[in-house]
Amino acid sequence: MLKKLTSVVFLLVFTLVVNGCAAKKETKSQAEIDRAKDTVFQVSAINALLQGVYDGEITCSELKKQGDLGIGTLDGLDGEMVALDGQIYQVKSDGQAYVAGDEVRCPFASLTFFEVDGSRELKEVASYDNLQKSIDSMIVNPNLFYAVRIDGTFEYVKTRSVPKQSRPYRPLAEVTASQPVFEFNNVKGTLVGFWCPKYIEGINVPGWHLHFLTADRKQGGHLLDCRLQVGTALVDETADIHLALLKGSDFRQADLRTDRQKELEKVEK
Amino acid sequence: MLKKLTSVVFLLVFTLVVNGCAAKKETKSQAEIDRAKDTVFQVSAINALLQGVYDGEITCSELKKQGDLGIGTLDGLDGEMVALDGQIYQVKSDGQAYVAGDEVRCPFASLTFFEVDGSRELKEVASYDNLQKSIDSMIVNPNLFYAVRIDGTFEYVKTRSVPKQSRPYRPLAEVTASQPVFEFNNVKGTLVGFWCPKYIEGINVPGWHLHFLTADRKQGGHLLDCRLQVGTALVDETADIHLALLKGSDFRQADLRTDRQKELEKVEK
Repeated sequence: MLKKLTSVVFLLVFTLVVNGCAAKKETKSQAEIDRAKDTVFQVSAINALLQGVYDGEITCSELKKQGDLGIGTLDGLDGEMVALDGQIYQVKSDGQAYVAGDEVRCPFASLTFFEVDGSRELKEVASYDNLQKSIDSMIVNPNLFYAVRIDGTFEYVKTRSVPKQSRPYRPLAEVTASQPVFEFNNVKGTLVGFWCPKYIEGINVPGWHLHFLTADRKQGGHLLDCRLQVGTALVDETADIHLALLKGSDFRQADLRTDRQKELEKVEK
Repeated sequence: MLKKLTSVVFLLVFTLVVNGCAAKKETKSQAEIDRAKDTVFQVSAINALLQGVYDGEITCSELKKQGDLGIGTLDGLDGEMVALDGQIYQVKSDGQAYVAGDEVRCPFASLTFFEVDGSRELKEVASYDNLQKSIDSMIVNPNLFYAVRIDGTFEYVKTRSVPKQSRPYRPLAEVTASQPVFEFNNVKGTLVGFWCPKYIEGINVPGWHLHFLTADRKQGGHLLDCRLQVGTALVDETADIHLALLKGSDFRQADLRTDRQKELEKVEK
């Protein structure tokens, strides 16, 4: 009995020591924890996507560890991505939202763990242009990044998606020239996206870039226009940006230096 | 005795469960571990530094958790930073290298955990220009980032440092116009720095940017010129870049959009 007790005590002490060591190794300062949580995790660069770098490298499973809210696209430019409340949705070219498989790889996206830094009630906003104007003042620091979430009731929403591409990949502006467009009337849903500073041109989309998901999480797309009846805009200010660039040969060969702002404007609208 | 044993067993089980939960919470995929290790951690943007955003925000203690090799400057533009083998050195305006205090804050730096992806033996390199040419071909992927470490024997090294500034801060080009310059003859030491792609202009320094530290870790500075007798160049290719932007009002008010390449070239030379 005493022998048994001794070995149990030995085991207990051993476990505590191992536990203690592990805990010590994993100890992170509050600054580090805050930084990890308050980071925009971005896959690839917008100029690479514009040139047809559509092969995904980072899985949705990995992405969900980097954020619970965001936007992007999926492997082969297979639809518009909306990450919301920790789930990643894929709005395919039929306008329907599907839960993206954990193993699906992503060629371009931005995600963050959404924490509210500012909020604003919105009422009767006549267009996407007006919506941008009414939330522009939530950008307190124009040299940082903002994630945004707008839950609302919309009189009208117009979105688009993109069909899955196969090689040889065409530039994004060619693909979106014949993009399928979807219209919603009197619908509840959520706009999700980011505001990025002008100096990040070429790497991400300067200004607002929003995707839409209906409240039933069944439809959505890249936002083209909207008329909002009533809603709440929440923003999350972020000073930390993690760029996860791609390692494949398409990205290596991409010309990321040329100014593609006009191409981007065409693609966004 | 039995009661004692029961409570010991209970404690053991409890410890194991707690331990198990903690372990589960901290479990990271190999992809995540690789990414965390193979990331360039960058503080602020070069265009902010050029405009005199010299107040540091992130401590050297925090920086050392983000990398063991790198370059930058210290709070108030107090000298040239060289991070090497996990230690952060501060080459002040007297040309001497001091170990930077853990609490010293940093307004601009890039660090990474250095892992060798490529190496090259170097012999009789007549100038910094020639040195750049002889290591240019180590840049396998011109859209990614490279940390570099060159240990060698130098016939000649010319460096500069910058004196600590006080408010109101002058632009960097004004400060470096009267920079103290240091010359070394027949010296062993290490060149440390980065090669950044052209598209990161405004955020970091495109091309090579190297600092020097003597083998005795007593002197160094921002590299202006060198003649290398013999040495080894090691590079670490990195696809992940973490930008830790500043939250202070100087950074918020900085104009990060204007092209400052000419100003940068003046400052670098």
